[in-house]
Amino acid sequence: MRPNIVLFGDSITQESFRSGGWGASLADTYSRKADVVLRGYGGYNTRWALFLLHHLFPLGSTKPPVATTVFFGANDAALAGRTGERQHVPVEEYKENLRKIVHHLKECSPTMLIVLITPPPIDEEGRMEYARETYSEKAMTLPERTNETTGVYAKGCVELAGELGVRSINLWSKMQETDGWQKKYLRDGLHLTAEGNAVVFEEVVKVFKEAWLDASEMPYDFPHHSEIDGKNPEKAFQQKCL
Amino acid sequence: MRPNIVLFGDSITQESFRSGGWGASLADTYSRKADVVLRGYGGYNTRWALFLLHHLFPLGSTKPPVATTVFFGANDAALAGRTGERQHVPVEEYKENLRKIVHHLKECSPTMLIVLITPPPIDEEGRMEYARETYSEKAMTLPERTNETTGVYAKGCVELAGELGVRSINLWSKMQETDGWQKKYLRDGLHLTAEGNAVVFEEVVKVFKEAWLDASEMPYDFPHHSEIDGKNPEKAFQQKCL
Repeated sequence: MRPNIVLFGDSITQESFRSGGWGASLADTYSRKADVVLRGYGGYNTRWALFLLHHLFPLGSTKPPVATTVFFGANDAALAGRTGERQHVPVEEYKENLRKIVHHLKECSPTMLIVLITPPPIDEEGRMEYARETYSEKAMTLPERTNETTGVYAKGCVELAGELGVRSINLWSKMQETDGWQKKYLRDGLHLTAEGNAVVFEEVVKVFKEAWLDASEMPYDFPHHSEIDGKNPEKAFQQKCL
Repeated sequence: MRPNIVLFGDSITQESFRSGGWGASLADTYSRKADVVLRGYGGYNTRWALFLLHHLFPLGSTKPPVATTVFFGANDAALAGRTGERQHVPVEEYKENLRKIVHHLKECSPTMLIVLITPPPIDEEGRMEYARETYSEKAMTLPERTNETTGVYAKGCVELAGELGVRSINLWSKMQETDGWQKKYLRDGLHLTAEGNAVVFEEVVKVFKEAWLDASEMPYDFPHHSEIDGKNPEKAFQQKCL
């Protein structure tokens, strides 16, 4: 009955229902109006995401999502020749994979609102600190991601969105507009703090509103309790339930 | 593909995806294993919930939920003759309504895990303070709910669960085991603080585990990223996706 909003992405999506997470905030905002469906796959890059595409978004579904956020790139941008090499995907392939994802979603539903989200910026120092705390002497000596390289992927993502005529959020740029973004928005140089989650939430809500998917203008699935007459409840439910 | 866990209830369920909410914590815990579906209806009592039953849980569904929490009573227990009278449902009818809900869910799926949750205790003083802050001079002069009466509903809920052979959580009793529960667990004498949400989350997870719906023992929907060979990703996806 309610429309579905799917969050498709890597760990930054998978974690988004933790306390203060952007996914949970979306689910709260759209409560009684749309279901927010969590499809986050920690560690995944776009190459691996392609394997899931037909399973998560089957063609011919009678109820495709009304909106999907596609939030990859943090792992694709892991550098070749460093500790995250296994996850590395060259930027041209990253763009091609995103293109395949968008095409598939459009094939599922031509009216689906598709929002590409770039990876957040990288705080290389924060990444190294985290590695030292976690692995002590076995920690990497060179960062496995750099902010500069991740920026190239972010740029590619936004360019592709423009080319395909879908919306995008340049999280990489947006976060860096704020002084102290390194610690304010990132808890380990990559993953989001509660404040970082709030930025994603605000940006997604803004784009959804611009695309006419505004929670405040969507109908409740069933009557608000204040519309129910205590002595004659049938009346309120007549239209939808009787 | 993934099983659904439905949270059916009133405002305490509807709010459960706010920061630190028990619903969001469940969604996080079952991430990549089950979908947590929010069906909370603020202000609803069991009498009104019955109108939704066939719509939210259609008979003959090919994918009924594996588990449903049924969390009503806070509004049923609003006192007759006070400001919440419209929501009041006599305790015997409350039990009958819960019985109808359980029977319907069992008809949807005989194997569904059904967990009845009692309303939380009421801090009458906190309720009055909240009313004064919100409505100042127009505030109620007598509390619209009492802890004692809500306790009668909680007892009825637990008794019914025993009679029907379904599981229950006596939140009313559980919360009162802790000194200072009034402010620690309740933010306005009725709705939950983050700590109150944590109690519900822990209790639900405990009951789910006892009933063999333990997230740590459930399979991932798709391979964990550490199982994916960077040079031969097909292999990891072979079983589920190719």
